[in-house]
Amino acid sequence: MTTMTQTAFIVNGQPRDERPTNETFRIEPRTGVAFILRKGETLRVIDPEGEQVSDLTAFDAEDPDEWLSSGRTIDYANRIYIRQGDTLYSNRSNPMLSITHDTVNGHDFLLTPCSQEMFEKLYGITEPRPSCFSNLAKNLEPFGIAPDRIPTTLNIFMDVRPSSYTGELTIGAPNSQAGDYTEFTAQRDLIVGLTACSAEKSNNGSFKPIDFIIGTE
Amino acid sequence: MTTMTQTAFIVNGQPRDERPTNETFRIEPRTGVAFILRKGETLRVIDPEGEQVSDLTAFDAEDPDEWLSSGRTIDYANRIYIRQGDTLYSNRSNPMLSITHDTVNGHDFLLTPCSQEMFEKLYGITEPRPSCFSNLAKNLEPFGIAPDRIPTTLNIFMDVRPSSYTGELTIGAPNSQAGDYTEFTAQRDLIVGLTACSAEKSNNGSFKPIDFIIGTE
Repeated sequence: MTTMTQTAFIVNGQPRDERPTNETFRIEPRTGVAFILRKGETLRVIDPEGEQVSDLTAFDAEDPDEWLSSGRTIDYANRIYIRQGDTLYSNRSNPMLSITHDTVNGHDFLLTPCSQEMFEKLYGITEPRPSCFSNLAKNLEPFGIAPDRIPTTLNIFMDVRPSSYTGELTIGAPNSQAGDYTEFTAQRDLIVGLTACSAEKSNNGSFKPIDFIIGTE
Repeated sequence: MTTMTQTAFIVNGQPRDERPTNETFRIEPRTGVAFILRKGETLRVIDPEGEQVSDLTAFDAEDPDEWLSSGRTIDYANRIYIRQGDTLYSNRSNPMLSITHDTVNGHDFLLTPCSQEMFEKLYGITEPRPSCFSNLAKNLEPFGIAPDRIPTTLNIFMDVRPSSYTGELTIGAPNSQAGDYTEFTAQRDLIVGLTACSAEKSNNGSFKPIDFIIGTE
């Protein structure tokens, strides 16, 4: 697959020569990255300062028409909070990622990435600003993935809690403290999009970085 | 748009000459339909016998890359149970359908349509059988919509209730009694896929029909 070698790592829409592996890479506040994660490799997503959400999505590297599905994952887990031991499934019911270590064990898979339209509808903000959606779109585009293909993301560390009676959602401060992390293992070759979330109300009022480590050993 | 006039109504994968309007059309058990619903038209989805789920999805008729998004809808409703007065949004944050009348007020938007793979993983059934996914795929295909484009559906009348503490899901008998209905109004020209659900465990153990009325007046 040509895109796999040509554009293995994208930062803020710009291709880098090489993926960082077995070392920490920092996603600056309100930005994102996309990269190839090969089968068997691990992805550790770290909250270095605490209370910061990271949106993750994934596509099959060989056939990006296969995508990470919140609906399938929730159905097979029979649980809306995704945690250590769970498998994340594609729209075709194939395993894409498993969660192999997790110091937090509470991640939202209900809400879509924050976007310009969301900021307008929910915050009343109309000035252009970065969003998880624009950051995912910008970094996935070099892999040939159009913005309309971005599904509901796994919102790592995000605290979204429904009332079981009314279904009303309460969004709390993220579940993560400084140094907390979630580690995934790829079940197939993937294109992964990852952000440091741009929605202040999801991050207890501030924008912080997200660190990650691609483990190849 | 040529597809809009050529294939305005599909039943079990077969095009019909005309959409039924202002009259009841029956979706037989474990089957589905797809049709054009024009802006301002209503769609009343009726459970004629009670405790039967119907899966609904929708795409913009002019640009099917725009699709009904559970994540955007849940985010803007700030609620996981969708009910009268709510608007169903696209992935681009545009209104697609509004719920203008509803005798039930409890519909699931978390789980994906039942599929062959789901029957195998959750029920241990490997023999080929109809599913909401195959019924949606078959009827949307004449509109040029590939199976991989089917998102998380609105599962009308389906009772899926998470524990707010553990996130575990409980699937109960559908919320609908015989004659209950949910009526939508189209906010733009749409391609709609609609089924009588094929998963016995979501329908209190049996397969029943679903009725619908497209209202043009």
